[in-house]
Amino acid sequence: MSAAFDPPALRAPSEAERLARVALARVAEPGSHEVYLALQQLPAEQVWDAVREGAPLGALGERALAGLAGRVAGYDPERDLERVRSLGGRVLCPGDPEWPEGVVWPLGSMGGEVKQMAPPWVLFAHGPAHLRDACQSSVSVVGARAATAYGAAVTGELSFALAESGVAIVSGAAYGIDGAAHRAALAAGSAPTLAVLAGGLDVPYPRGHDRLITQVAENGLVITEVPPGCSVTRMRFLVRNRLVAALSRGTLVVEAALRSGSLSTAGRALDLGRPVMAVPGPVTSAQSAGCHALIRAGKAVLVSEASEVLEVIAAMGEHLLRPARGAVHPRDGLPEAVRRLLDAVPVRLPVGVARIARTAGVSTLLVQQALPSLLAAGLVEQRDGGWRLTALGWGRPEKPPPPQ
Amino acid sequence: MSAAFDPPALRAPSEAERLARVALARVAEPGSHEVYLALQQLPAEQVWDAVREGAPLGALGERALAGLAGRVAGYDPERDLERVRSLGGRVLCPGDPEWPEGVVWPLGSMGGEVKQMAPPWVLFAHGPAHLRDACQSSVSVVGARAATAYGAAVTGELSFALAESGVAIVSGAAYGIDGAAHRAALAAGSAPTLAVLAGGLDVPYPRGHDRLITQVAENGLVITEVPPGCSVTRMRFLVRNRLVAALSRGTLVVEAALRSGSLSTAGRALDLGRPVMAVPGPVTSAQSAGCHALIRAGKAVLVSEASEVLEVIAAMGEHLLRPARGAVHPRDGLPEAVRRLLDAVPVRLPVGVARIARTAGVSTLLVQQALPSLLAAGLVEQRDGGWRLTALGWGRPEKPPPPQ
Repeated sequence: MSAAFDPPALRAPSEAERLARVALARVAEPGSHEVYLALQQLPAEQVWDAVREGAPLGALGERALAGLAGRVAGYDPERDLERVRSLGGRVLCPGDPEWPEGVVWPLGSMGGEVKQMAPPWVLFAHGPAHLRDACQSSVSVVGARAATAYGAAVTGELSFALAESGVAIVSGAAYGIDGAAHRAALAAGSAPTLAVLAGGLDVPYPRGHDRLITQVAENGLVITEVPPGCSVTRMRFLVRNRLVAALSRGTLVVEAALRSGSLSTAGRALDLGRPVMAVPGPVTSAQSAGCHALIRAGKAVLVSEASEVLEVIAAMGEHLLRPARGAVHPRDGLPEAVRRLLDAVPVRLPVGVARIARTAGVSTLLVQQALPSLLAAGLVEQRDGGWRLTALGWGRPEKPPPPQ
Repeated sequence: MSAAFDPPALRAPSEAERLARVALARVAEPGSHEVYLALQQLPAEQVWDAVREGAPLGALGERALAGLAGRVAGYDPERDLERVRSLGGRVLCPGDPEWPEGVVWPLGSMGGEVKQMAPPWVLFAHGPAHLRDACQSSVSVVGARAATAYGAAVTGELSFALAESGVAIVSGAAYGIDGAAHRAALAAGSAPTLAVLAGGLDVPYPRGHDRLITQVAENGLVITEVPPGCSVTRMRFLVRNRLVAALSRGTLVVEAALRSGSLSTAGRALDLGRPVMAVPGPVTSAQSAGCHALIRAGKAVLVSEASEVLEVIAAMGEHLLRPARGAVHPRDGLPEAVRRLLDAVPVRLPVGVARIARTAGVSTLLVQQALPSLLAAGLVEQRDGGWRLTALGWGRPEKPPPPQ
């Protein structure tokens, strides 16, 4: 662990780093905590070397490496990079101007069914839109694959009106609500639409949306965390959902049955502290029952029209992106447990993870999971093998006092 | 003003009092503050004498009496009593076993469009059900006259299921939602349904519901505040709505446009501290917009099925009827302003209205309006021309200390 190592988000990635991150995306599943944590501690090339050589390093222990070994043999990351470029796509890494910055991922609280929910370390993108710009004003519109005519019509109305207001529509390119959202945004043509895939850029899924996904790639942006050729799996869908939530300032559920995958996206949005909105429908429709449950539980605000969506993302979304270093402190936007953790990090003398956990009264695991994103957000720093607050984390524009 | 006068609710009414109350219902509009206040101060016969003779008395000043004079000439209340009985109905007064007791009316906060929203002083009833018993477990189901097929169907489903659970369905006998609610309750046949009319018992309105209202009178209860022969007016509808809210433990709005009369009933329920529930519907339906607005504003809880309605009236309704004189104090159920007022009433030395208003920091009008219902609830008493707390109002089971 090197005290001189700069967090990835703070510098432009080298070509070697880009290649290493692509390679790690190939051998590990998206959302892997071990890989993500290792990348916060060490340069990507070193992490990739460790994986290739099966040599434990930082967060990558014997067991994690054993899980990755099967995909290493004979793999050449240049081929993946080549393939992405031949498709007309690009590889985005932290530090790239297009990388969506400023999202503080409260890893500890995320998960549910799937435990591996770390932030992405590389994104494969295809399309003319600029990812970070598009995310500045975006809403994810999600819902049932088996949407009713009502759900599809309302999705179209809302998405068209939101796109016309300059809001990027983020969705998952699935049948039903997702498709209706992308199509309406394309029809409006005023703001890019973003399709976040669970498989590779060259594996459009569902196949019936082949043409739609091509249109999104031509006019907006298709995004995925997995390299070309990767197929979709149930786990990749669930991990993808957190990205849909993270890339938008609020999540709108138009129709969802009580056990719908779109409720997982809503859950990830809540984990991230993002507002969730739900469209009501007939109480006789099973496809609206999930929306009504969200509203009843106070997890979603009821919305009927685009102006109400704009109101929510304007009013509640302001504090969710990292604010300018000014009057409002970034910690204000953090979940309670993470804030408590941050309060336990000392200003001067760096301390270890166990000490922070003890002081904060939270688990060591939570600390291990949360520190990397606090590091990426510039709130903490590593010194002498321990952690301490940065000037920003400390809440002062000037530097903290020097170590004793 | 007599210190020895017992509040009407605490003793059985005499036949003379009943007659006088009927007469006052004939000459004054329902909800008249002047008549209601006078009846809290004096026996009904004296109030009626004052009206007949045009002689100012208590709350009935010159101006109020002038407004009533036009209907006095040649009127014989015996005829009204006779007419009610010939219809098969009965006249209910405070102190009757059937009188719905225990509702604390926060007069000061009620009103809105119509200022005269005092509690009823007499009710005309027709039907086999027992009013007070029926109110113990009741829900008012209200909504648009121009209901959609969806609204009518959901009203039917919910009302049928609620009636089957033993809940009395209270409504206004109007076309649309009201009618669907009464019909479903009649079909279930397990609990009485109550139709609260804005006109006289012999003036069924709307005419097209003549047969429905007869069925309710045969199986449940038809209620009104106005004597036979009285026609409906816009004001009587609005004043009637407070009674619909007051006779039920919660109000369910199934469909309502943004400027619907049923929102007035919901408003009166909120004034009374009763829970309001709303059924969502398609956002494309103008008849659901009022329901969605109530939910969005946090004024109504979203309900989709009967079990959710039962949950609300069980959980939130318990404290809304006057509790037994025990652990929970009746003042707990009072609106903030009325509680503040009550705190300003002395335990020992009686004081006047102006002094209470000054101490509580509320208007004299609010004090004048609220004291009669606090008197009826047994929380305050009149002594030596002023007001002081009773043992109950004082919050002790034993008597307050004797006056100094």
